[in-house]
Amino acid sequence: MAYELHYWPGIQGRGEFVRLALEAAGAPYIDVARGPEAAGQGTPALLRCLADSHLSHPPFAPPFIKDGNAVIGQTAAILQYLAPTLKLVARSEQLRTWTLQVQLTIADIVTEAHDSHHPLGMDLFYEDQKPEALRRAQAFCRARMPKYLQWLEHIVQRNPAGSRHLVGGKLSYADLSLFQLIEGLRYTFPQAAGRALSQTPLLLQLHARVAALPKVAAYLRSERRLPFNEQGIFRHYPELDLA
Amino acid sequence: MAYELHYWPGIQGRGEFVRLALEAAGAPYIDVARGPEAAGQGTPALLRCLADSHLSHPPFAPPFIKDGNAVIGQTAAILQYLAPTLKLVARSEQLRTWTLQVQLTIADIVTEAHDSHHPLGMDLFYEDQKPEALRRAQAFCRARMPKYLQWLEHIVQRNPAGSRHLVGGKLSYADLSLFQLIEGLRYTFPQAAGRALSQTPLLLQLHARVAALPKVAAYLRSERRLPFNEQGIFRHYPELDLA
Repeated sequence: MAYELHYWPGIQGRGEFVRLALEAAGAPYIDVARGPEAAGQGTPALLRCLADSHLSHPPFAPPFIKDGNAVIGQTAAILQYLAPTLKLVARSEQLRTWTLQVQLTIADIVTEAHDSHHPLGMDLFYEDQKPEALRRAQAFCRARMPKYLQWLEHIVQRNPAGSRHLVGGKLSYADLSLFQLIEGLRYTFPQAAGRALSQTPLLLQLHARVAALPKVAAYLRSERRLPFNEQGIFRHYPELDLA
Repeated sequence: MAYELHYWPGIQGRGEFVRLALEAAGAPYIDVARGPEAAGQGTPALLRCLADSHLSHPPFAPPFIKDGNAVIGQTAAILQYLAPTLKLVARSEQLRTWTLQVQLTIADIVTEAHDSHHPLGMDLFYEDQKPEALRRAQAFCRARMPKYLQWLEHIVQRNPAGSRHLVGGKLSYADLSLFQLIEGLRYTFPQAAGRALSQTPLLLQLHARVAALPKVAAYLRSERRLPFNEQGIFRHYPELDLA
């Protein structure tokens, strides 16, 4: 049975980390909120699920997936749940935990990238917090982003199974999330990310290898891959791109 | 062998979620950075670990634990790792995932509580971002905090195993984290949290039950429990407590 992925239509957002895992594994899934309302899909279907008072494990927010009767929310928990079936995580419990740890750290930088354009919160438009965003983006571009990327570079470098992956000797969902992180940072801060990534050659090689995986490459060329835009987590406001 | 907990001394911070799990389970542990430097402990020991280039699984930031040769960072990953041994999670894989999902959502509100006093980032003092903090705290107190607490209340309410716990029929690390969340919110926003919590009677009962667990109660009375202060995640700035 196909998985149901529930995420806001129109943006990549955090749903993209789940979508990439499903796509890279060739797993059948329905992208519910992007489907036709006439077929019981679309955003109303997502909202119905969120409001369903019969769920004993209700998600707080999208993304969430339905796998038969199981409903799972929180990006890192979804990936942790899916990965053994999708063969996107090592079998050892120790490496599963390490993969989760890497994913949670990627999630932290994603949150900070988001907050760089919305430091005062999502109840205000970007246009209503531009000076504050500039101050926060400065710290992100000059300190936080390089620090996170250096940490990821070190992990690849120190991987006992070789520097082709973040964890172990095979593709994991952490590699896919790293790919998406780099895509997002390059879109958001072309100059600042370019400078930081020039110091992380192994990450760039890993990013290129993930992009060239046949299933990932086919997905990226398809209409299922939404373009970045200024409604998502990664937004390009040139004035925030501090070289 | 005792676990080593590595976290900044002087604040509860995110380390407290790990400390509570270890204390509630009665597990032996060394709170490394709070130990004497003469015994190879103290902050220098924590910093040595963070900078250790031989670790193949280096943590990005505290808290992290050492369990023999294993080093694990990221609060939710640490708890996920420790919980089966500490008997603080159900055995079923489905409930383990659900516990992780609840923990990650608690981590999200903790991050938002933190950002309410530091919306522009940690490279600036609170005093340098007071007007911005006021705007962010307003959204947190009036919308975000009540929304998260209502979600948690619904989970307890809908728990098929009864409304004495967040997950299943036994104490889990999620219950301990909920206890700490409520402690922190009450300290930070006595008025706003009081108002929000008046709508979540089941959470208040669960909080009281956790506080009364003999091992937790003994810990809270001990010197091992640090008081809240204005260097941690939960800080009391009366001007931000918007009733």
